[in-house]
Amino acid sequence: MNEHLHINEGRLLARLAEMAKIGATEKGGVCRVALSDEDKAGRDLFIEWCQAAGCNITVDQIGNIFATRKGSDDDLPVILAGSHLDSQPTGGKFDGVYGVLAALEVVETLNDHKLTTTHPLEIVSWTNEEGARFPLSLTGSGVYTGIFNLEYALSREDKDGVTIGRALQQIGYDGEHINRRRPIKAAFEIHIEQGPVLEADDVTIGVVNGIQGICWEDLIFEGQEAHAGTIPMDGRRDPVRAAARVVEKIYLLVDQYAPDARVTFGDFSVEPASRNTVPSLLTVTLDYRHPQASVLDKIHQGVKEIMESECSVAGIEGRVERVLEMPPVNFDPVCINAVQDSTDKLGYSSMQMISGAGHDAMYLAGIAPTGMIFIPCENGLSHNELENAQPEDLIAGGNVLLHAILELANP
Amino acid sequence: MNEHLHINEGRLLARLAEMAKIGATEKGGVCRVALSDEDKAGRDLFIEWCQAAGCNITVDQIGNIFATRKGSDDDLPVILAGSHLDSQPTGGKFDGVYGVLAALEVVETLNDHKLTTTHPLEIVSWTNEEGARFPLSLTGSGVYTGIFNLEYALSREDKDGVTIGRALQQIGYDGEHINRRRPIKAAFEIHIEQGPVLEADDVTIGVVNGIQGICWEDLIFEGQEAHAGTIPMDGRRDPVRAAARVVEKIYLLVDQYAPDARVTFGDFSVEPASRNTVPSLLTVTLDYRHPQASVLDKIHQGVKEIMESECSVAGIEGRVERVLEMPPVNFDPVCINAVQDSTDKLGYSSMQMISGAGHDAMYLAGIAPTGMIFIPCENGLSHNELENAQPEDLIAGGNVLLHAILELANP
Repeated sequence: MNEHLHINEGRLLARLAEMAKIGATEKGGVCRVALSDEDKAGRDLFIEWCQAAGCNITVDQIGNIFATRKGSDDDLPVILAGSHLDSQPTGGKFDGVYGVLAALEVVETLNDHKLTTTHPLEIVSWTNEEGARFPLSLTGSGVYTGIFNLEYALSREDKDGVTIGRALQQIGYDGEHINRRRPIKAAFEIHIEQGPVLEADDVTIGVVNGIQGICWEDLIFEGQEAHAGTIPMDGRRDPVRAAARVVEKIYLLVDQYAPDARVTFGDFSVEPASRNTVPSLLTVTLDYRHPQASVLDKIHQGVKEIMESECSVAGIEGRVERVLEMPPVNFDPVCINAVQDSTDKLGYSSMQMISGAGHDAMYLAGIAPTGMIFIPCENGLSHNELENAQPEDLIAGGNVLLHAILELANP
Repeated sequence: MNEHLHINEGRLLARLAEMAKIGATEKGGVCRVALSDEDKAGRDLFIEWCQAAGCNITVDQIGNIFATRKGSDDDLPVILAGSHLDSQPTGGKFDGVYGVLAALEVVETLNDHKLTTTHPLEIVSWTNEEGARFPLSLTGSGVYTGIFNLEYALSREDKDGVTIGRALQQIGYDGEHINRRRPIKAAFEIHIEQGPVLEADDVTIGVVNGIQGICWEDLIFEGQEAHAGTIPMDGRRDPVRAAARVVEKIYLLVDQYAPDARVTFGDFSVEPASRNTVPSLLTVTLDYRHPQASVLDKIHQGVKEIMESECSVAGIEGRVERVLEMPPVNFDPVCINAVQDSTDKLGYSSMQMISGAGHDAMYLAGIAPTGMIFIPCENGLSHNELENAQPEDLIAGGNVLLHAILELANP
């Protein structure tokens, strides 16, 4: 097996196009929300293709689909590769599905060339990665890796009160297999970048060495409701006065950790939300990210200090409430090297990078050596019907995945 | 008639207490929303008292109630005094109703002493001052003074789709009198301050020389929606980054016109309002006030300049949209002097001041010489069930109103 082994380009692109018809939207995107009829159709088609490729299919209790190809020593740990088939309500044709079909293409390429790997291979499609219908992102990989209890995950409801458990039954994907942790030698996930970096730098392959840590906090400013006209400025306890300065100072704080740090104030809620009343309460959501836990800690400390000093100046009460914390993930050096080696061998341009978004690989990294591969994404657009990727990049990524898997599947 | 003439203290306080029973809330406030059954009951009681005091009652087409006491020369222009009987949904016992019942008390005091004024007197209760149920504040005085068309006002709907016209019919206050402008020699409105200034300065009477001008604007920041994790900071067009600096700078701008200037950012709306998405759109409401039109103009210019420069720095689109403009009102020197003279004659402490809130007197000032009298309001609280005023201040205000009216009613 050498660098002259390539995937079947036409087949991969044709299958991506075929799958994109399921839930296709007018604007060229996809609506294949988790556990919908479209998701069922996508799963059915995927299984049909996997069975035609000679794989053994199992579905676990949270609906994850595994398609296994035997190794020459089938008792060895598997090499796992895949992603998810579900989409955002106005999603694109590549987010998730590319990682699943590229893994299938690897298996088919090996079939074409009658090659057997030492370790068995397993293609996976995780349930409800997006969390769009059921607000529990990464449901399938989260249950599989022991982050979420199965019962907890099954009982999550969509806005109509339908649980994941019920929805799995309705589409016939309430599998019997216990969510297991079969020994995994390595796990790979290939994905569009969902950001502008590779395209901007004209690089084909992103060798992903980790996922940013994420902190979600609420900045809560409590002042005193007051009439906009009758209360003099110096008699007010105005939460907006503090909030404007806090937000500005947090931007400056996070700028100190450029270019890797990110900060987003995505939502504001106000009480009583009346134009001519000084608010009694203002809550600003804060999302900040960085690949290093120590930097996240420093930002958290800085945020608390800024809140304390500015709220004190404005004479209001301020507090920071932690909503969610996802520590940074460092992918396994063996997997990172396998991706880098394959990329170099195939002659593609590459850069090492951090993922700014969460992926199923994030949870996998907690139980197995894991790596990710990124390819460029047009204008950095994702979670959008206009999401696009170039055929040559889709093919390059497939070849890198093929060779990274081979490097570890045939020690 | 001299400074020894005083109102009947007990009667005024008893009537305020009696009226406060109509729509009384558990927390000690009042819910007597415009054109509700409670408003009808309040109107009925007021008319009963006025008729017992010998007044002639007319109700106009927008439901304003006028109770007239003849003068010795009844062809002369009237002296008008009053306010409104409607309340906020969780309102207080004094906002509005005090101005109506104090005017009635003036008439009754004159009756008690068998005094006839040269000019006729007219007590008025304006319809829907609060705008709480029907979102058109100052409806009655606005129609009366020609600000609003009668048909426009009658067609305003509450949230259940009931028009003012229908609601007036339902409570039997769809009067027949044409909204007229009977010649008015002077108009007075006495009101609780609804702010903390008189109480803080331990002053009994506020001689109001005008009403702040009000500008309502929307600050609209248009950026680009972006993923909180994948898009580098320098690739973002983040409307929040601009907004924080704009809000901070507008506070500093308005501070230059302290202590009279006021600025309030009462509401924020965000799209798509998702914690992990950089907003595409942020709208911040702006309310600023000052007694001088020239200062309002300067603030408006400053706001536009700040928006332009900060939005340009942040690489986003920003614009200022005018929502409402109410020019400052200067009350009539004759009325202001009548209030000041009466206060001095009676020996009450006083200060000249500007009203921070809108009142029916604001519209009246456009068609007749007008003045207002303020009395202290506990903790500056109003539009609140805990709204309170001290009996001695209520009585002092009534005496000032009595003597101000007499000064102009008997030339």
